[in-house]
Amino acid sequence: MVRRLASEGLGSFFLFACVIGSGIMAQDLSAGNDAVALLGNTLATAAMLFVLITIFGPISGAHLNPAVSLVAALRRELRWRDAILYTSTQLVFGILGAWAAHLMFDLPALQLSVKGRTGVGQWIGEAIATFGLVLTILGSVRSRREWVAPSVALYITAAYWFTSSTSFANPAITIARSLTNTFAGIAPHDVPPFIIAQLVGAGAAALLARWLIDPS
Amino acid sequence: MVRRLASEGLGSFFLFACVIGSGIMAQDLSAGNDAVALLGNTLATAAMLFVLITIFGPISGAHLNPAVSLVAALRRELRWRDAILYTSTQLVFGILGAWAAHLMFDLPALQLSVKGRTGVGQWIGEAIATFGLVLTILGSVRSRREWVAPSVALYITAAYWFTSSTSFANPAITIARSLTNTFAGIAPHDVPPFIIAQLVGAGAAALLARWLIDPS
Amino acid sequence: MVRRLASEGLGSFFLFACVIGSGIMAQDLSAGNDAVALLGNTLATAAMLFVLITIFGPISGAHLNPAVSLVAALRRELRWRDAILYTSTQLVFGILGAWAAHLMFDLPALQLSVKGRTGVGQWIGEAIATFGLVLTILGSVRSRREWVAPSVALYITAAYWFTSSTSFANPAITIARSLTNTFAGIAPHDVPPFIIAQLVGAGAAALLARWLIDPS
Amino acid sequence: MVRRLASEGLGSFFLFACVIGSGIMAQDLSAGNDAVALLGNTLATAAMLFVLITIFGPISGAHLNPAVSLVAALRRELRWRDAILYTSTQLVFGILGAWAAHLMFDLPALQLSVKGRTGVGQWIGEAIATFGLVLTILGSVRSRREWVAPSVALYITAAYWFTSSTSFANPAITIARSLTNTFAGIAPHDVPPFIIAQLVGAGAAALLARWLIDPS
Repeated sequence: MVRRLASEGLGSFFLFACVIGSGIMAQDLSAGNDAVALLGNTLATAAMLFVLITIFGPISGAHLNPAVSLVAALRRELRWRDAILYTSTQLVFGILGAWAAHLMFDLPALQLSVKGRTGVGQWIGEAIATFGLVLTILGSVRSRREWVAPSVALYITAAYWFTSSTSFANPAITIARSLTNTFAGIAPHDVPPFIIAQLVGAGAAALLARWLIDPS
Repeated sequence: MVRRLASEGLGSFFLFACVIGSGIMAQDLSAGNDAVALLGNTLATAAMLFVLITIFGPISGAHLNPAVSLVAALRRELRWRDAILYTSTQLVFGILGAWAAHLMFDLPALQLSVKGRTGVGQWIGEAIATFGLVLTILGSVRSRREWVAPSVALYITAAYWFTSSTSFANPAITIARSLTNTFAGIAPHDVPPFIIAQLVGAGAAALLARWLIDPS
Repeated sequence: MVRRLASEGLGSFFLFACVIGSGIMAQDLSAGNDAVALLGNTLATAAMLFVLITIFGPISGAHLNPAVSLVAALRRELRWRDAILYTSTQLVFGILGAWAAHLMFDLPALQLSVKGRTGVGQWIGEAIATFGLVLTILGSVRSRREWVAPSVALYITAAYWFTSSTSFANPAITIARSLTNTFAGIAPHDVPPFIIAQLVGAGAAALLARWLIDPS
Repeated sequence: MVRRLASEGLGSFFLFACVIGSGIMAQDLSAGNDAVALLGNTLATAAMLFVLITIFGPISGAHLNPAVSLVAALRRELRWRDAILYTSTQLVFGILGAWAAHLMFDLPALQLSVKGRTGVGQWIGEAIATFGLVLTILGSVRSRREWVAPSVALYITAAYWFTSSTSFANPAITIARSLTNTFAGIAPHDVPPFIIAQLVGAGAAALLARWLIDPS
């Protein structure tokens, strides 16, 4: 179990450092063209996801996301006790990743975002984004297990662009992103509805998958 | 059959929401540089196609496109009755996807595009684009079935850029895009010639494939 | 043989239409930022190469390039007579692809480029680019035959950016690009030294490969 | 051994020419938008890495990086004598690659960078970047050996964006980049701390991998 938690922790550290760090780099360099910044942020996030799922998948499943660990527990593929350990590890090491991004860019480690992200549109976006993410994972595990890594990486590539919230789709990263006042940030008071929407989307996908995906 | 239609419907919902949603996001952020907007729109569309074909391919074939279902029927790989069900499902759920994109971005659900897309050049473009898409599908199914998903995703990546119409290549998405007055839109009166050109291209490719691709 | 030539012809048509068409689209939209234009041109070209090699590779080898057919003949994998047929087909159908790009974008079909591309730096670039392309093909055929398509697509992705000429690396496409006065064009009097440099690079790679790659 | 060194040398030549050449091209064309320039530089570097690891991996391992050869020696997968030969070859041929980039772009071959890259943030960045690179290599070799090439290419894609130094992660390329006064340059006096940070990161990853990755 320690090895599995080390795998989840290290993976979350690199994923969150990458999401936040590439956002800082992208905004610093993009001369105010936010679409160019989002291109850089998207490429970096998707590329990192591919790598982390490839190398940590065989050790811990490479969930890197409490919503994914929750679905695994609901499907009895992970014990509830382990799901809690996974989730705590993702959160703690993910926040360390956020702080590492700040250190690398010579910013104060401890920050709080002031970037508002709210409204029904964005909540629908988070629900749809997480619904699709869970469907992508369960669907590709079923249809081509060796393609889970590119499928998740490319799903997030699309989701960064087609949802109004740029698709957080991960409760731990939502919390970690409230601790950075940079491109990827989200104001702390906007975090709870995002997480609720994510859990609703994940739960709906888990239900649907039992009928649509599992029998194939 | 219900599972297969759910697969086509859900896939069309996500594909159309992605094409239209990423167009809105891209245009909002790109500060008037339409090439940057098209880069974001291309990446998102191609990434989503890869995912949807990977996860829904084993359930319904993941046509997501009436022109593809028509070719399957012509080749007797799909019954005509089923082709009609597929096509209706693609259209209905695809339009729901367009409306979901509007909701996510806090836009009115019901819209009509005023963006003119017309002229012989664009019609030739649609015919060539759909011809190439059908050839890509039939060719990769024949040569490397497990690479249909990346082949289609990358064909559309190229087609968004080398055709003057940015390659709709899909009658259902052409209709759905007439219902959005955003980056991806097309004025309703410009829809019929696009669809005719698409069907001509698809039919020509189906004919050619019988001689060029099927024997190998 | 007719099927193989149809495969080379159709592949060259789509490749050249894509290189030239995506250049027109990219320049039209990029508001004077040539790096953005080159990003679009690169993505489209690489994506199309992946598709064409995947679907036409099993039929004709998908050379789409006289330098590649020449190397195949030197290696006795293709008869000299067939190499000449391949080369002529690539050129004729490739020029048709250039004209199709012009038609799609409502430009006059017949054009001559006035864009100068000359100098020792660019000639060294073309030699290195074609040397690397031939090494990529022979090397990936030897090490992982099923990855020739992504290897060639990604080699050209890199070569568009690291050579001063943006890497033509193909005598037929060099001639076809002299017939378009758009982003991808090259003035006719600058064509011969490009082709000579390409053939020198291809020949050197073929020689080196006999010692470095073939024995492994 | 001569073939293996030729493989390392040719690979380093192309990798370093690509990193530096694509930086020159990107900066020339990007009209001052450095994020667009970094996108081009990232795409070209990652694409070239995929190709070089695919074709040279079976001959020499395609280290192309003294930190990687050092880790291989520490793990007794490479004799120390050979690690020194590998490292020298990477450096010599890599510098030739840098000079080839200059020649292609009509710049003086011999240059020294004046671009300062220093500070604790960037040193932490280099340590994390190289730590992650070594983990990516050892992890993907263990979990899916045939995916080492895409994993390394995509790790570097992410690392160019999420570290403040844009991730050199390679002592030989750090030295070679001090010899170019272009986009990719680094002032010579800033080289030693970068290399020390890289070796610290690589060593830490090698240690961790013995416990985390090797047993799986």
